[in-house]
Amino acid sequence: MMTVAIIGLGLIGGSIAKDLKSQDHFTVLGVDNNQLNAQKAVELNLVDKIVSKEEAFKLALIIILAFPVDHMESALPHILDLIPSDTVVIDMGSTKERICLSVANHPKRGQFVAAHPLAGTEYSGPTAAINDLFKNKNIIICEKEKSEEKALATALDLFSTLGLHTSYLSSSEHDKHMAYVSHLSHLSSFTLSLTVLDIEKDESKIFNMASTGFDSTARLAKSNPDTWAAIFEKNSQHLIEAINIYEHYLNEFKEALKVKDKSKLLDMMSSANDIKRVLNKK
Amino acid sequence: MMTVAIIGLGLIGGSIAKDLKSQDHFTVLGVDNNQLNAQKAVELNLVDKIVSKEEAFKLALIIILAFPVDHMESALPHILDLIPSDTVVIDMGSTKERICLSVANHPKRGQFVAAHPLAGTEYSGPTAAINDLFKNKNIIICEKEKSEEKALATALDLFSTLGLHTSYLSSSEHDKHMAYVSHLSHLSSFTLSLTVLDIEKDESKIFNMASTGFDSTARLAKSNPDTWAAIFEKNSQHLIEAINIYEHYLNEFKEALKVKDKSKLLDMMSSANDIKRVLNKK
Repeated sequence: MMTVAIIGLGLIGGSIAKDLKSQDHFTVLGVDNNQLNAQKAVELNLVDKIVSKEEAFKLALIIILAFPVDHMESALPHILDLIPSDTVVIDMGSTKERICLSVANHPKRGQFVAAHPLAGTEYSGPTAAINDLFKNKNIIICEKEKSEEKALATALDLFSTLGLHTSYLSSSEHDKHMAYVSHLSHLSSFTLSLTVLDIEKDESKIFNMASTGFDSTARLAKSNPDTWAAIFEKNSQHLIEAINIYEHYLNEFKEALKVKDKSKLLDMMSSANDIKRVLNKK
Repeated sequence: MMTVAIIGLGLIGGSIAKDLKSQDHFTVLGVDNNQLNAQKAVELNLVDKIVSKEEAFKLALIIILAFPVDHMESALPHILDLIPSDTVVIDMGSTKERICLSVANHPKRGQFVAAHPLAGTEYSGPTAAINDLFKNKNIIICEKEKSEEKALATALDLFSTLGLHTSYLSSSEHDKHMAYVSHLSHLSSFTLSLTVLDIEKDESKIFNMASTGFDSTARLAKSNPDTWAAIFEKNSQHLIEAINIYEHYLNEFKEALKVKDKSKLLDMMSSANDIKRVLNKK
């Protein structure tokens, strides 16, 4: 029996809990500052028991941090201060550079594994937790050379139990790539939603005219503001760079539209089509 | 037995053909300038027979126009010139204002029904044709008062056979709303794709980092350039207005990121979340 404590019982933490609970050899402890979430997680049978942080540090061999990234930097050094020397701490944050920096010189840095599972939905909270959220998805481990071999092996075992495939990146590479691939996707979806809501005061028209194309492009605009405001803020520098390039192409489209330059529109769309090569690999 | 001719055997025309062919009481004639597409449509059994335009005009009671919108304006008046007085012509174009204008004073305007089915996928050509593409989707009829009652009734019957629900808008309202809800969705997806391709020269990293969020936001960037360059060009004025508002919100996000104004980010995302009310109605 292995005891795992999960701090933060939302979409990610709750889904990890659910998967581990469905296996025989895990005891799953839950920690959540939000009493309603903690209670909900018990009702939904996501965890075996709700405990305090202190109890979690005492009892668990693995501690998973699944709360918003804006609290991660300040919380992580204290958590490392308090854990026994054989406990492994793994974070699930969507940004990595500043989290890694916050414990770069911590004497227990080796017990920490910095990870980011590329999985999620637009829903949030314990009720959003689902089984198999991580199955055949990727998880990125950053600065693996700073984790002790034993800690890394423990994390890899756990990830494999969840069905995750592991990749490795430096924390700065991670944050830069995520700015373009994930964070910009969310930003453009939020922006699309604001634009459409601004114009379409008559909601029934949005509904009637919502083709499946709008649905998929605006889906991420349903995402949790607390989670995403924290991610955007923590990765603001890379995200601003990504927005600048996005604005450049948007402006090229606009200029081509102004002069009705169809061959330019065709060229740009054909180039954009190239994303097929990438997406169809899946 | 009712004879229907479909001009343009791509995703939309091919899918209509497929649905009608699966019913006993339709003879489906296909017309396509592209010989390869015509041949493919026969191989795929989408149509009973490939015919010339002239034969189609002679034989069919309903003629469906499902070719790119940039050819619609110039082709439609000639088609009306050539059809017998009991034939109904229905177009499936994604823009409507200029198409309607092209036959506004045509003596056979009453035989024409201007329609736009809100259905599609990111794939194109006859191989993209699927059954039930239109089932429970919306179709918008523009300027219905300009269609003769009999022509309108024939169109409504056909749409109901395909499983479509009908709404009515003026052609200018249609084009304006579509600019925001559909065309801007496609534009933002093309732009996202160009931005990510520009930065991520190492494709394997895009693949590894492509979470489901990126997939859904970039999906429309796989769409057919010929189809969409024509739509964008024909609806450029409304689309430019939509881009201006989109740029305004994008810039608000960027300014908030520059000064790390998290409460502003939270406010904007919470407002964007409002799209839930609209999308969840479905």
